[in-house]
This record gives sequence, structure tokens and C-alpha cells, in this order.
Amino acid sequence: MDITSKLSDKVKHLEASSIREIFKLLAKPGIISFAGGAPDPNLFPKKEFAEIAKEILENEGNTALQYGITEGYAPLREWTKERLVSQGILDADDDVIIVSGGQQGIDLASKSLINPGDGVVCEEPSFIGGLNCFRSYNAQLFGVPMEDDGIDTDALENLLKEHSNIKLLYTISTFQNPSGITSSLEKRKKLLELAEKYDFLIYEDNPYGELRFSGEEVPTIKSLDKSGRVIYFGSFSKILAPGMRLGFTSAKAELLERMIICKQTQDVHTNVLSQMIAYKFVTKYSIDEHIAKLRQVYGKKCKLMMETMDKCFPESVKHTCPQGGLFLYCTMPDGFDSKEFMKKALEKNVAFVPGTSCMIDDKATYSTFRMNYSTASEEEIVKGVTLLGEVLHDYMGV
Amino acid sequence: MDITSKLSDKVKHLEASSIREIFKLLAKPGIISFAGGAPDPNLFPKKEFAEIAKEILENEGNTALQYGITEGYAPLREWTKERLVSQGILDADDDVIIVSGGQQGIDLASKSLINPGDGVVCEEPSFIGGLNCFRSYNAQLFGVPMEDDGIDTDALENLLKEHSNIKLLYTISTFQNPSGITSSLEKRKKLLELAEKYDFLIYEDNPYGELRFSGEEVPTIKSLDKSGRVIYFGSFSKILAPGMRLGFTSAKAELLERMIICKQTQDVHTNVLSQMIAYKFVTKYSIDEHIAKLRQVYGKKCKLMMETMDKCFPESVKHTCPQGGLFLYCTMPDGFDSKEFMKKALEKNVAFVPGTSCMIDDKATYSTFRMNYSTASEEEIVKGVTLLGEVLHDYMGV
Repeated sequence: MDITSKLSDKVKHLEASSIREIFKLLAKPGIISFAGGAPDPNLFPKKEFAEIAKEILENEGNTALQYGITEGYAPLREWTKERLVSQGILDADDDVIIVSGGQQGIDLASKSLINPGDGVVCEEPSFIGGLNCFRSYNAQLFGVPMEDDGIDTDALENLLKEHSNIKLLYTISTFQNPSGITSSLEKRKKLLELAEKYDFLIYEDNPYGELRFSGEEVPTIKSLDKSGRVIYFGSFSKILAPGMRLGFTSAKAELLERMIICKQTQDVHTNVLSQMIAYKFVTKYSIDEHIAKLRQVYGKKCKLMMETMDKCFPESVKHTCPQGGLFLYCTMPDGFDSKEFMKKALEKNVAFVPGTSCMIDDKATYSTFRMNYSTASEEEIVKGVTLLGEVLHDYMGV
Repeated sequence: MDITSKLSDKVKHLEASSIREIFKLLAKPGIISFAGGAPDPNLFPKKEFAEIAKEILENEGNTALQYGITEGYAPLREWTKERLVSQGILDADDDVIIVSGGQQGIDLASKSLINPGDGVVCEEPSFIGGLNCFRSYNAQLFGVPMEDDGIDTDALENLLKEHSNIKLLYTISTFQNPSGITSSLEKRKKLLELAEKYDFLIYEDNPYGELRFSGEEVPTIKSLDKSGRVIYFGSFSKILAPGMRLGFTSAKAELLERMIICKQTQDVHTNVLSQMIAYKFVTKYSIDEHIAKLRQVYGKKCKLMMETMDKCFPESVKHTCPQGGLFLYCTMPDGFDSKEFMKKALEKNVAFVPGTSCMIDDKATYSTFRMNYSTASEEEIVKGVTLLGEVLHDYMGV
């Protein structure tokens, strides 16, 4: 039988993410990859986790291995809420649930909000996992270009005037993936103003916010929200470890309740052992000291990558200068195609993500590419970026 | 702002599962609960897991804590496939993915197949997590009564003749939740015959199949399927531990590929540490010896529950006699209401799941109730069932 005739309208049109296709190429031995978005594994608290995991399974194994609560392991949920309140992100009467990675928060909120044909505005470029999630609920995607201080709010307002079906705006407000850009306070306020005026909701995805290594903190959009229009997504993936699949999300009670029901039909609850390990770690050790270490390492790697680029890349290739997070974004002059460039780079055993994977129209040609500096070692950063510089000079004929 | 006006058509009508509401009552101290579906925590291999987890985090922490593959940790995926092939459930060219609990398999397949209004046939009674999942994709649910040897296939065929929108049939073929009934080989063959004739797909959910403590193995529907109409869901929750959220699923390649894409937008991948713990456990120890122990304990508890019921329940209250799994199902004479009975039982500190939670029309009145025998101790089983017998005599006035 032909099972494709049975596929739902939600998935018929979906394609495996192009990033995944790139990842398959990364199995090549000796490749230097700036393509992923993974933390530096040397910074995982492996020794501490090993002790903690053993202790939990020996002493609290009945809880760690049994069915858990859909909303999350209560002590971790409470700790997360207190931290977000202390950071000024949440009010004391806001509620938080633990989810199986930040991505699940986005998915649950999308399932709870998006009807086919509803408009979702995304920053361009944006995070492919967000874009694909909205696609999987048959949303109509609209892209608004990023500027140095966040989304182009004039272009956004024009779009809102034209399209009455816009229900949501998706923003990675701080150290954006892929651009590394942090939205200014003014733009954050403007987004809330527009949300009120045009009656849409804001998804604020903030998995990188804790990883600031320079500049000044900017308040989250959630912290400025007075009417409950912001749905907030956070993650333990970048501050602890992504393999644990731990994230958290906060939204108005009536929405959060629906998300919890959806989570129950999706995976019942989040892995209990990982929630308990995370909770033990953040209470036994100082999470702030741990994060300070991450900031230092990523800041150093980012600086090294930018310096090497400035030395080795053609002058006409520009890059963003992130103040935190895991990514920076490069732009070749118009007319050059980052997919072509990628093919040539792969021949030299260096990988990155071409801009096309971050755009709504992923069939078009873009001169941009994303570079991750968290995973590779300092030595690899110098070697890989130098090689990319050579390939760029060759490809661009400069 | 009123966020309820923004909710999607998928979740507007959803209600928190009534089982969850019952679970809240179970916080009552001293309660004896036959309401859950949890394994006996005394059987969790806690000591072994503690050693294994420590070893993994110390020696393979970079893999255990880093992003993983959406399809699952390759060695566990391979092991699972080999086991299913050796059990005759899969062919060598079938493919398997690891999912975050069996529930996620059902959700991913549903997202990939169900358009709003598509018909899904469920056994009545059935598993509330399945029913709620289909509801969350706006399926039209049809119930077909269970008989002692599985679904009533005559009633099913009549339904199929009447409704051309039926795309799926959901069956828990072995030790069904909640009834404990195992479908006969004849009925399994008949289902496949009807699936061909009326062109629908079969979800075979088999989380309990390994837990047989009496009677003869019956081949899975999947193993009898020649045309790829069966989507198979299995789980490590009942044979290892549910808190780990590990399940697996097999389907035709074209569907499995869509499910993988949906999984990527849903939780990216399954918790890596738990997958590695499970893999180490099943390779270092004998999973068959472990399962033999579970079968023995659950068989003994089931027998004890049935014997106590036969002694203490009014004669007119009937129960099924499962050959495995975690549940048996009781039926009071017509006219009695298991929700009323539950209220009275809770006053005596004993809990179970009323039949209404297992039915498509969950507003109606049912004389049935589900009893779990895996979680409670033998002492609690005798004490709780004896108390229930007293309440039943009182409630039924016999």
C-alpha cells in the first residue's frame, strides 16, 4: 500500500531540515565543524553529575524511575520559578512548567495556538527548529528582516497592517540564533506596543540569555509585558547540558493549562532522573559560578573567531559581534551563494550553516552563513576559520 | 487580554484527563491506590542503574550530555530492532526509532496522519492517553465494544460500512489497558482483512506484551501484516522504568520519516543518558531474566487480586482474567455508576479508575472500573480489595 496518500496536511509538505542533511556530512573524519549549536562538552559537569546520579538512583530511585508529574519535578519547577522571579523575568504569580527541552515549549504553545493559515511572524534569519515547528502546524510564515538592534519594527508594522491573520511573533530576543544580535530595549517595548495595537502574541525564546560575556543586560520582553501577551521559553541545554532535554516555559494560566494537557498526550512528562540531577546540581553547587565559567570560555572563543575572521576573511565579508550566546553571522557581498561556498568549504573539511537554513524561503539563494564558536576548540577555531578564509578568497576571486 | 480567544481548534475542547483529577485525590495520606498504571518500584533495577549511570557519566559523559540523534541512540535503536526481529514482530528490513515514551510514538504518528475530522476507531474501553491524543488532533472518535477475545469485529465492519472517513484503528492488542483482554489470533487476522478491505491503518500499541504470566503467546498484528498497514508502538516503561521516558515505534519508511521530522520539532531527540543507561543494562544484564522476575511478581499479584475479589466482591460484579499486563476490569450490574462507587471508595481511602475515563463519551454513566495490581503491595491488595468489597456490598445494597 502507498502510505503517503494517508499523510496529514500538517506533514505532507515538511522536509527534513537542511541542517540535518549537513550534519550527515559531518561524519567525515577530521572535519572542523562550526555548523552545530552544541555547548562545549568540556564544560559539562560530568564528575558532579556522575556522583549525583548515583546518589539519586541509590537513595531516591523509586521517584527517579517512576512516572512523574506532567508539569515537572516539583522542586526543580519551584527553583526555576524562583530564579526567573529573582531575575525580574517573572512575577510572583506567574507559573512555570518544565518541558523536554525548550523546543517542546515552542511545540506545545504552537499546538495550543496555531490553526492552519494563522500568521506567524519570524525574524529573518531565524532558528530553523522554530520555523519547522510553525510549518508543522500549517502556519503562514512571514519574515521580517533583522537590523543591528533587532527586528525591523517599521517593516513589521507594515506587515501587520496588511495581514489580519497574524496571531504570533517569534523572537529570540537575546543573542539571537543565528545572528547573535540582541534586540534593544526600545525595540522590545515597540514589539509589545505593536502586539497590543494589532492584537498578537509574542513568543520570546531565550535559551542563550544567561550566556552574556560582554555589554549590559537588557530586560526580557516578558519582564516588560503587563497584559500576558508574552509566552516565555527557556532552557537548561546551554547552561547545563542539552542531552538531558530540559527546558521551561511560562505563559498565562489559561494557555499553560492547555499546554500541559498537550504535553500529557505528547510525552506524559519529562525524564525524571534528569530533572532530579539538574535540581541536585543547582542546589548543591553554584549555578552562577558554573555559568560564569561558560561565559568566560565562550567569550574567549567568540573573540578568537572574530579576530581570526578579521585577519583571514576578505574585507567585504562582514560578521556580527555578539555579546553572548553561541553564534555569529557572516554576510558576503550580494550575489555570492553561501551554499556554493559551503560545498567548497566541505572539500577542505570545514563546515558551517548556510543562511538558507535560517530563512522562510529556503529555496532562494543567500550570501549569509552562521558560525558557531562554542563547540570547536580554540585550535580548531583558528585552523578552521583560516581555511574558510582561503576558500572565501578563492570562491569570491579576491 | 483574554488569551482563550486565541486558542487553537485543536485544544479548545480538550479537558484535563479525569484520571489526573483522580490522581490529585491520591495525595491523601494512607490511601490504597489501584488507580495508576505504574510498575512496582521495588522491581526497578536501581542498584544496577546507579552503577551504570555513574560509569556512563564518568567515561562517556560527552556523549550522554550532548545533543543526540533524533532517531535515537544508535546502539539502543539497533538492539531494539534486533530484539523485535528475534521476537518475529519485525522483518529485517523494518525500521525502528526510539521515542520519548510509547505515548510520543502515538502522538507523532497521529500528527503525521490525522486531519481534522478523520475517523479513528478505538476499542471501548480504551487507554485515555490514546483517546486524548486523537482528540487533540480533532479526530472523530468511534468506539467499538470489546469482547472476551478482542474488539467486536462485526460491529466494526458495520461501522466501516457506514463511515468512509475512517483512517485508523487503535488497538492495544495484548493485555489491553484497561480491560486486560488479549485479542485472539482470529480477530487479529480479521482486523488486517478489514484494514485491506476498507483501506485503513492500524495502530498496534503493545506496551504490556512482554508481561505475560500465563497462557500462550499470540503473534502481534504487526508480525502478520504484509502490506505495511500496521504502525507498532512499544515501550521500556513497563519492562525497565517509566520515568526514563523510553519507547520505540516502527512504521513504513515514508511515514517513519515524517514522524522523525515531527519529533525534531517536538523535542529534538530523546534523553541521551536514559537511552545509554537502558542500553548498558540490557547488554550487561539479562533483560529476559529481569522480565521473568516481573512476570512472576505481577502474576502473583493479579492472582491475589482476583482471589480476593472472588471472596469479597458481590457475586454479580464480574472481572476479567488477564494473562499478563497490569490491569483487570470489573463490571457491576447495569444501572450502577462506578463514579458514585468511586466517591464512596475514596471515603474508605481506596482508589481505582472508573470506566468513564476509558470511554469516548466520558459524560455518560458506566458500571465498569479499572483495577491496577502492579503498584500496590500484596498486603495492600488484600486490604484494599476487601475494603472495596465492603463498599460494593453497601453501595449495591446486597
